[in-house]
Amino acid sequence: MQTQATTIRIGIVGHGNLGRGVEAAIAKNPDMVLAGIYTRRDPAQLKPLTAGAPVYRLQDLAGHKDRIDVLVLCGGSKDDLPVQSPQLARDFCLVDSFDTHARIPEHFAAVDAAAQAGKTTALISAGWDPGMFSINRVMGEALLPDGATYTFWGKGLSQGHSDAIRHVAGVAGGVQYTIPVDEAVEQVRSGTRPQLSTRQKHRRECYVVLKDGADAEGVRRAIVTMPHYFDEYDTTVHFISADELARDHAAMPHGGFVIRSGNSSAANKHVVEYRLQLDSNPEFTSSVLVAYARAVHRLHQAGQMGCKTVFDVAPGLLSPKSAEQLRAELL
Amino acid sequence: MQTQATTIRIGIVGHGNLGRGVEAAIAKNPDMVLAGIYTRRDPAQLKPLTAGAPVYRLQDLAGHKDRIDVLVLCGGSKDDLPVQSPQLARDFCLVDSFDTHARIPEHFAAVDAAAQAGKTTALISAGWDPGMFSINRVMGEALLPDGATYTFWGKGLSQGHSDAIRHVAGVAGGVQYTIPVDEAVEQVRSGTRPQLSTRQKHRRECYVVLKDGADAEGVRRAIVTMPHYFDEYDTTVHFISADELARDHAAMPHGGFVIRSGNSSAANKHVVEYRLQLDSNPEFTSSVLVAYARAVHRLHQAGQMGCKTVFDVAPGLLSPKSAEQLRAELL
Repeated sequence: MQTQATTIRIGIVGHGNLGRGVEAAIAKNPDMVLAGIYTRRDPAQLKPLTAGAPVYRLQDLAGHKDRIDVLVLCGGSKDDLPVQSPQLARDFCLVDSFDTHARIPEHFAAVDAAAQAGKTTALISAGWDPGMFSINRVMGEALLPDGATYTFWGKGLSQGHSDAIRHVAGVAGGVQYTIPVDEAVEQVRSGTRPQLSTRQKHRRECYVVLKDGADAEGVRRAIVTMPHYFDEYDTTVHFISADELARDHAAMPHGGFVIRSGNSSAANKHVVEYRLQLDSNPEFTSSVLVAYARAVHRLHQAGQMGCKTVFDVAPGLLSPKSAEQLRAELL
Repeated sequence: MQTQATTIRIGIVGHGNLGRGVEAAIAKNPDMVLAGIYTRRDPAQLKPLTAGAPVYRLQDLAGHKDRIDVLVLCGGSKDDLPVQSPQLARDFCLVDSFDTHARIPEHFAAVDAAAQAGKTTALISAGWDPGMFSINRVMGEALLPDGATYTFWGKGLSQGHSDAIRHVAGVAGGVQYTIPVDEAVEQVRSGTRPQLSTRQKHRRECYVVLKDGADAEGVRRAIVTMPHYFDEYDTTVHFISADELARDHAAMPHGGFVIRSGNSSAANKHVVEYRLQLDSNPEFTSSVLVAYARAVHRLHQAGQMGCKTVFDVAPGLLSPKSAEQLRAELL
């Protein structure tokens, strides 16, 4: 039996929810070791999950090329990754979770140019959507070309929509949950390939803390009519206290389904469903990033340079087990 | 945008349920064409789904090397594939659905030796289990290393168990359905990682036609106590008429779930579920075989010779779309 003797040295860039999740995920993978956490903050102020974990300033990274096999970038898709991923891909193999779907082609091009120039291997847009859900969209379509694909998100806390609520005048705090509509999910699961509007697929539920003296009905109306964010959905607003918000809504659960239904012949239809129920959106995303860091390390060792996505990674590369072991145990 | 201009020429070996399914699947994939159906029977007696489809004797295959890109082998795992796959892999790229889990390592070794010698690309054990379920077992474990994996089969018609029933004295005909136990599935979905016995996971339901004068209670007892097949399960036997058997039990539905639950940290657990509901087990298996035939053709064009499994195939290789198109549309 072949074994994986090498230890993969992971560097974490950024230590928010995602970076802490990567730290936790490394601890679950015996073939990995945390080489360092790199931060724009003062390293002395940062509290790693593991006492004594090495923390450095971001600018120290340039001198640490020989200490790191793969960097996991934990910044945001709006401002951090469009700059960091192409910049760091010149010198490091890396994984990011770039999730602005519409801008993936340009991000890919920028990272690919850097990785090709630096002879590194970089994988962008790992996570669960983009990521695991994307894989299931591609495979569903490939297995059942005569069919339809549906993606549902939730029940889960949406960061973007929660931010939008907090910007409404009179709101002191709040969160928003995206919830798939049960009837729509059941229709899709039945294999009838329904045409569903935005409103028919998801509903939105908001938990809002009012500022002193704010007009509840005015706030409610401002939320449910907000263009792009809420106006196309059935939205419910619940008013709660700051204590309730802190006590009941601090977690970041999420999840959803990708469902492909299609016909292999006029007589026979099939339904393929991939479903996630996540206690913590950032921690699961981090777990995916770390598994893809392993794949990136192997692709690099096999001489496959340039930018990759989850579509380019064979499932076996994600596992610490050898190909022989996988065939014997899990095929 | 890059397009796939090439047409992939598929040869089908064997024309039972699986071979007919492959014929149906080729018709759903515009980048594929049926080069020929190869049979041990008299070609004149075989009825292809498409009028005029070319049918040849199996021994004609040797002379058709330049007409075929990938063979899809549709024989059985017990007697056909252990002989055919290594034999044909010397001269052809191919896909098979070898599903005797315990013998996969030796089948792999035999096919790999032949494919390496012949400089061909062969993929074994495609389908849904082994196949799609195997991929989800590997990925579940890689994403959540601190966790447990559960595979449930059904509700579905089991060919092996149906055969076993038909060999019981006094039985004129019958089918067996494997059914996951709802309580077990719900426990697993809750993420509690239960320890489940064979009996707790699945139950078996049999629909049996008695021969004239057979003793129903004796037949029932012979079935439910049959070692390996039924004695470890709760089994229900229903006696029906030959007409009911033909009318209500001719279809071959199947499916099941692969569920991985695990923790990314002490505080947070996650549940990943992959689920299939199939009207026709052989037709869906055939759809998978054909998608993997596309991947085999591409791996071969890329110079990757030898034996492969689903663990070695990146998701993007299964799709007729280009990598650019997949990134822009489905990531």
